Amino acid sequence: MIFRQLFDAESSTYTYLVADPVTRQAALIDPVLEQVERDLKLIAELDLELTHILETHVHADHVTGAGRLREATGATLVGGIAGASCADLHVSHGDEIAVGGLTFLVLATPGHTDDSVSYLLGDRVFTGDALLVRTNGRTDFQNGDAGALWDSITRVLFALPDETLVYPAHDYKGHTVTTIGEEKRHSPRFAGKTREAFIEVMASLHLPPPKKLDIAVPANRSCGVAPPAG
Amino acid sequence: MIFRQLFDAESSTYTYLVADPVTRQAALIDPVLEQVERDLKLIAELDLELTHILETHVHADHVTGAGRLREATGATLVGGIAGASCADLHVSHGDEIAVGGLTFLVLATPGHTDDSVSYLLGDRVFTGDALLVRTNGRTDFQNGDAGALWDSITRVLFALPDETLVYPAHDYKGHTVTTIGEEKRHSPRFAGKTREAFIEVMASLHLPPPKKLDIAVPANRSCGVAPPAG
Repeated sequence: MIFRQLFDAESSTYTYLVADPVTRQAALIDPVLEQVERDLKLIAELDLELTHILETHVHADHVTGAGRLREATGATLVGGIAGASCADLHVSHGDEIAVGGLTFLVLATPGHTDDSVSYLLGDRVFTGDALLVRTNGRTDFQNGDAGALWDSITRVLFALPDETLVYPAHDYKGHTVTTIGEEKRHSPRFAGKTREAFIEVMASLHLPPPKKLDIAVPANRSCGVAPPAG
Repeated sequence: MIFRQLFDAESSTYTYLVADPVTRQAALIDPVLEQVERDLKLIAELDLELTHILETHVHADHVTGAGRLREATGATLVGGIAGASCADLHVSHGDEIAVGGLTFLVLATPGHTDDSVSYLLGDRVFTGDALLVRTNGRTDFQNGDAGALWDSITRVLFALPDETLVYPAHDYKGHTVTTIGEEKRHSPRFAGKTREAFIEVMASLHLPPPKKLDIAVPANRSCGVAPPAG
């Protein structure tokens, strides 16, 4: 497997390029608008064909590069069943997405937003803003729900093998990856905690809104490109 | 192998944690002073013993965490033969460093600085500021030498198998890794270029000095901690 983790410093977003080395077919997970040229250049240099763009959710902290990438490549844009209507394919828990010889399994992991999904590929899972390194996504907008997020993380993601590599959509401390086992043992949000305590913690955070919320959410509902006129 | 790439956003520095999953012995490559607590916490959570700190060179753009980490753990501090005298072990081309069951092979790769080394571990090489993603380290201070860097990259690093993963000490565009083959084919500094043209390009860059040059180089010559009084 060809695998590249890419970073957008402004929004601290991780984008992932995953490709089948035999067929050269590739998927990008959670691309960022400002990095589309970088990502297209890398795809060309690696002699890959972008066939899929996988969104973990409608982002509130950056504008997606998905629409631009679809225009440039004709790739299929994939999002959760409750996600942006501009996606080509809306997936639900248990669905599979084939990218060359690679198969992504969709896991519904709502709670950060109601449309959040994770994508499992063998020994690694792309968790979007559900499970982050030693923490989790906020739950105070876009139909976020702390109880739902607790259930997604503890019943769906923590049911994966402990050695599963967790690749999040963000990190703010320079971590690039974690594992399910580590998060079970060391996340201050989950290790030894209860669902009730977690809901209380999430309700008490009182975070300022994401800087790009008012721009990003409407933009991302049209996949990062202006909707057609008329 | 346990492998973690870590990022310091202020200096855009990558630090690497590499460990033997059986003996739990670990090495940190190019740690950053401001991230020492993060790194020690991760080492403890992963139940690792830090036995080695590997420096690729005396850095000019950040202060090393090596001295602090040595104080905290008793790890052996390793640098190139022309590097900081405060290191415990000064290594030369062809030397091997055993970390549990893992063996790092030292490659002399001078040119960015005269003390620059790379560390080869199986299918991956940690190149410091010699070879970066689609570029290379500057050569205009600390006895930098563009001709020497050309030779280090084209004769030593490009002699590795094309599929070798290249983990640099920095990236400024969000790339985390490259390969020897990619750099041979796509680096604008090397693909189809001559040694003479490379030396001309490096001489024409006229870069401003690194912001931390006057602080970092003296600090790093004492491994990031004040030298003992007297």
